[in-house]
Amino acid sequence: MSGFGDRLAEAVERRRSQVVLGLDPHPERIPGEVDAAEAFCAALIDAAGPACVAVKIQLACFERYGAPGWAAWERLAARAADAGLLVIADAKRGDIGISSAAYAAALLREPVDAVTVNPMLGDDGVAPFIAAAEAGGRGVFALVRTSNPGAAALQDLPLADGGLWHEALAALVAGWGEPSVGVSGLSAVGAVVGATVPERIGRLRDLMPGQPFLIPGVGAQGGQVADLGPAFAPGPGGGLVAASRSLMFADDPARAAEELRQAVAAVAEG
Amino acid sequence: MSGFGDRLAEAVERRRSQVVLGLDPHPERIPGEVDAAEAFCAALIDAAGPACVAVKIQLACFERYGAPGWAAWERLAARAADAGLLVIADAKRGDIGISSAAYAAALLREPVDAVTVNPMLGDDGVAPFIAAAEAGGRGVFALVRTSNPGAAALQDLPLADGGLWHEALAALVAGWGEPSVGVSGLSAVGAVVGATVPERIGRLRDLMPGQPFLIPGVGAQGGQVADLGPAFAPGPGGGLVAASRSLMFADDPARAAEELRQAVAAVAEG
Repeated sequence: MSGFGDRLAEAVERRRSQVVLGLDPHPERIPGEVDAAEAFCAALIDAAGPACVAVKIQLACFERYGAPGWAAWERLAARAADAGLLVIADAKRGDIGISSAAYAAALLREPVDAVTVNPMLGDDGVAPFIAAAEAGGRGVFALVRTSNPGAAALQDLPLADGGLWHEALAALVAGWGEPSVGVSGLSAVGAVVGATVPERIGRLRDLMPGQPFLIPGVGAQGGQVADLGPAFAPGPGGGLVAASRSLMFADDPARAAEELRQAVAAVAEG
Repeated sequence: MSGFGDRLAEAVERRRSQVVLGLDPHPERIPGEVDAAEAFCAALIDAAGPACVAVKIQLACFERYGAPGWAAWERLAARAADAGLLVIADAKRGDIGISSAAYAAALLREPVDAVTVNPMLGDDGVAPFIAAAEAGGRGVFALVRTSNPGAAALQDLPLADGGLWHEALAALVAGWGEPSVGVSGLSAVGAVVGATVPERIGRLRDLMPGQPFLIPGVGAQGGQVADLGPAFAPGPGGGLVAASRSLMFADDPARAAEELRQAVAAVAEG
């Protein structure tokens, strides 16, 4: 069984895309109940999916509907997998070890290929996710520098040793991912790095040479694909550009996804 | 409508307890499927609940069963509320603003009284939880210094200004909670502080004078009630001692909970 890094690189080559379709059916965007959110997302997978390599399902949007919401995201994950897309559960979970193991058991199973995790609790909070992921050829993406305006307050705090807090975190993430680096050069342990801080991406790539970067923040949040060059340095799969609002609300989501696919390819291969 | 800080103080006075019953039915502890986990927790609420002020439901243990698990924890929450206990959803969620708002909508509703949140994303990641909580007389507990062995690697990093990272976080949490401090002196914004680092609790109490502390780590993780004195300084509700394994696996959970209640009261009032 190939590790997630190699599976990701292979999927990017096969689909010729490093675009991730974000499924974030917030109720103020998609009125109605869970059925409406599910139908909207299903149509979006069908339309925009062909230009993408993966979907990223924002679990918050489904949890708010309780048990029926949970069942809905599982059906969407299966639909995306049937369409040949990788499935990333955007859960941002993190807890002490035994509880992280339970979250890992909940999330890292068919048809999910990878999960986002919050690493604030440190090694023993993340290790159960990594172990469960690697056992199944799956991956994790640890938050390193998020895309939101308030991220700097804690993630960019200057450390006594001269670096920033998220740089120390990046070094930890690189260490966690070292054992699972595959022939592609990519690890099963990736990093979430916001497109809204392009000035940090080169430094983060230096600190995490083998991590696939999952990059939110392009489009509505203000990030520009043209600024993401160093993210793609490891080759296919090194940088995954996640887009949600810009695809959900495009007049023609299929076309918008294809245009983003081409824009990412131009930077990644340029 | 009273704010959560005052509701908490009132509940502690009414029940004469600052013990929180942790419901963590990990499958290696409670074999079987979700029905077995639910039945075990229901019996534990009935037995140990009378000596407690709240239950803390570890959502990881229920998410692993998918949609049926979600329905199970909601039933347990209702059972605890019917027994006069406050309900804390131990979810440790945190995301960018719009997604945090969705998690808040999912979790901060009847019969849940408070939710744990991960503050790594900063103000705009936590604000939607606080807004939703305050609107309903509910509360949040932000992770500040967790009880697990690996917590130090990121949470205790020394900052350029001379403090530690979690102390900067504590100051932020105090600021977030300042507007909701009630007549009891307690805020709707509390803090998770591990009993495994008693040497930090005095400093954290100085930094967060109005935060209720939710304190895991007593018992199986090695924390001692006798070391928690400063946590209780604000009076009733200032320190909530969460116990899980030591109550779940006691020969007599009712008696174990009552003994812990008395031990906490002796330190809190001592």
